[in-house]
Amino acid sequence: MSDIPEKTIERLSEYRRTLLSCHNQGITHIFSHVLAGIHGITAVQVRRDLMLIGFSSDTKKGYDVEVLIDFISNILDGPNVMHVGVIGMGHLGQALTKYFNSRKSKLRIVASFDVDEEKVGQIIDDIPCFDMAHFEHQVQKLDIKIVILSCPATIASDLVVPIINAGIKGVLNFTSMPLNFPRGIFLENYDITTVLEKVAYFVKEAEEGVDVQN
Amino acid sequence: MSDIPEKTIERLSEYRRTLLSCHNQGITHIFSHVLAGIHGITAVQVRRDLMLIGFSSDTKKGYDVEVLIDFISNILDGPNVMHVGVIGMGHLGQALTKYFNSRKSKLRIVASFDVDEEKVGQIIDDIPCFDMAHFEHQVQKLDIKIVILSCPATIASDLVVPIINAGIKGVLNFTSMPLNFPRGIFLENYDITTVLEKVAYFVKEAEEGVDVQN
Repeated sequence: MSDIPEKTIERLSEYRRTLLSCHNQGITHIFSHVLAGIHGITAVQVRRDLMLIGFSSDTKKGYDVEVLIDFISNILDGPNVMHVGVIGMGHLGQALTKYFNSRKSKLRIVASFDVDEEKVGQIIDDIPCFDMAHFEHQVQKLDIKIVILSCPATIASDLVVPIINAGIKGVLNFTSMPLNFPRGIFLENYDITTVLEKVAYFVKEAEEGVDVQN
Repeated sequence: MSDIPEKTIERLSEYRRTLLSCHNQGITHIFSHVLAGIHGITAVQVRRDLMLIGFSSDTKKGYDVEVLIDFISNILDGPNVMHVGVIGMGHLGQALTKYFNSRKSKLRIVASFDVDEEKVGQIIDDIPCFDMAHFEHQVQKLDIKIVILSCPATIASDLVVPIINAGIKGVLNFTSMPLNFPRGIFLENYDITTVLEKVAYFVKEAEEGVDVQN
């Protein structure tokens, strides 16, 4: 396991996005408490995260935005672009593809997979859509390391074996079906229903007169 | 603040989804270690979560699936359907609307808001799309409590004041722009780039020969 906790990795990704936005606005330096404020956390947390990756800064002027972007990128990104595939090219698959590929990133969605005859063989959102039957072949040909599952939950379980066989190393599961993979394949279950139900719960609690923590 | 931690609320939502799926398959009882295995956590965690909401069970047969569904629903759901609005009816907004409204739930997306002339005034995915200019009016008319932000990140900040003014109580922010709201409005920033970057990081680490924790 990596020395850096998952939550720190998530925050580093978030810091970088904010820093890139600052950089685009011509901001050259940022204080830890400003960065913290934007993300709704404490300055101590920001400093702890950056200490974990070995970054220290002249605190009088704040962090140098450009230097910090490069520093975080060296941690998060590999030397080369990493290829990603999308399984299930419905609305969600298309939304995710458009969203990710419109950004400058070391991650690139290079192919999608579906079983729908109207999609297979087409170029959708600038990437080819292949028949799921050719999944393993295309993964190896295109050097795909990560797959995003945006298919119906009912078929998610059927994908576990093909994903293992194809040599995929990371899975981002957007379906509501929790999956398990053997050690060596990093899995993130990311069900969007859960988060809406959570928001609804805290709204309900607030309405019932209980204090809500923001 | 509610007595139940956010992470427990998330897991309860996930347990319920699994239990509903079990129920549909005719399964009447489930052991904590089975439920735990499906979600990749320990049985101790499952029992602790259920203890927190005051649920105890005959451990010889495992949990009664139907009883546990009702028990969790009583915690998570309010007595009435809660109305949700979507701001930004692009691919992501449409994917989310289709996804949520196809499920039986106490949450219902009842309206969307956009500024695109081709969308405003139309019925998209069975719900009306209103001009953002009428946001406050429609929120009150339709009793919308929660909004989902699936608009471009560049305009997300401009929505904070209208959302506060309209009396919204919960915000699920899918844009990459972190937002802050005053106390009393529950906010969940849920940027999908972060999670893909996290998966990519752990894949890269694994490739570099570091053990990866699943």
